Amino acid sequence: MVTTIGLDADDTLWQNERYYRAAEAEFAELLADYADRVDLENLLNAHHRQNIQLYGVGAKSFTLTLIETAIEVSGGAAPANLLRQIVKIGQELLTHPIELLPHAREVVEELSAQYRVVLITKGDLLHQERKIAASLLGDHFDAIEIVSEKKSQTYEQIFARHGGGARASVMVGNSLKSDIIPAIEAGAWGVHVPHDQTWALEFAEPPDAAPRYRKIAHLGELPDLLAQIA
Amino acid sequence: MVTTIGLDADDTLWQNERYYRAAEAEFAELLADYADRVDLENLLNAHHRQNIQLYGVGAKSFTLTLIETAIEVSGGAAPANLLRQIVKIGQELLTHPIELLPHAREVVEELSAQYRVVLITKGDLLHQERKIAASLLGDHFDAIEIVSEKKSQTYEQIFARHGGGARASVMVGNSLKSDIIPAIEAGAWGVHVPHDQTWALEFAEPPDAAPRYRKIAHLGELPDLLAQIA
Repeated sequence: MVTTIGLDADDTLWQNERYYRAAEAEFAELLADYADRVDLENLLNAHHRQNIQLYGVGAKSFTLTLIETAIEVSGGAAPANLLRQIVKIGQELLTHPIELLPHAREVVEELSAQYRVVLITKGDLLHQERKIAASLLGDHFDAIEIVSEKKSQTYEQIFARHGGGARASVMVGNSLKSDIIPAIEAGAWGVHVPHDQTWALEFAEPPDAAPRYRKIAHLGELPDLLAQIA
Repeated sequence: MVTTIGLDADDTLWQNERYYRAAEAEFAELLADYADRVDLENLLNAHHRQNIQLYGVGAKSFTLTLIETAIEVSGGAAPANLLRQIVKIGQELLTHPIELLPHAREVVEELSAQYRVVLITKGDLLHQERKIAASLLGDHFDAIEIVSEKKSQTYEQIFARHGGGARASVMVGNSLKSDIIPAIEAGAWGVHVPHDQTWALEFAEPPDAAPRYRKIAHLGELPDLLAQIA
């Protein structure tokens, strides 16, 4: 029996990672005099991994880490004007338009007629709220949960609050690490909808042995899969 | 009849603004070659007012605005090493210890036995969560709401969700602009507990004519005031 569907937002309902990749490419170009692209990417990800503990995830955290990395990689020689351009790259990340992924609108509408549908997203509070508003999908959700981390406990609490608990819930998203594995650990079903661009820090092996793990090619396959599960 | 007490966190339950003031003083010292203190403060507040729309409030937003202001005020001449120190100032804002304000612990404990007590705070999601954990007060709250803005609608929704609605609720905090005025507009009582340091952007005139506006000198006066109101 399934009562509740949890949906991830970034790169599940709308494009997100592509803007971060474009920001990284601009960043690499700005710093081309100081580091080659691969070294820079490795250093940047190392800084992200470290800073995420302190800053959390989201565009502001990302921008501060770009700035820190630029200062380090240039040996303190990056001119202020270059850092100003990095600040601007970060501001653009906060203002890009929302482009829904294929099937997102129809599927959210269809599911909301049948299940409790909860949007579960992590990142900057205000930025996520703005993106939800711009998606024009907000009214279809029974609840919106913007969280700092997606752990097994996060899903336990959210599915207890908005439905019949994790056992009666399905979490749907593009990140194995954040959306699928911890939801399955909490007792829910985990439905992976891969996106061709997923952040290196969201990498995890698929939980192939888990009986409640499923994978679909795109959101359009979700209603049929849910009917099978139920 | 009062069922629910909303409590602000920063500078109501624990010290906060003093760390931002210290950060601003460090910032002014770093930029002493480029601007005098008063001009710098005015420029910084102008940038904060503008950026808050995009970044929201919190230590990361604050840090990004310091960086932008440093680049501008130095005419692009601020060396990377100076900007590195600003990044560090921001990181320290995210890690300072929690110092509870007088009466905070006893009053939260006392109220939680009698009312539904909801912590209502704005700022960075992860940072606020960390501060709540460090305060060791978390278990006394019936709910914790970390929000991006504190508007009248924010209070309407929160008090509807966690109690008998705004008419049966009291909001307590140090910011007239964020805690008191919008709560009173929503129909709740607003109890102002002034703090000697309050951010310029939180300034508002007291709503002296509002029948549901009260002011106390410190949190220790809250239980008696609530008994009177009830």
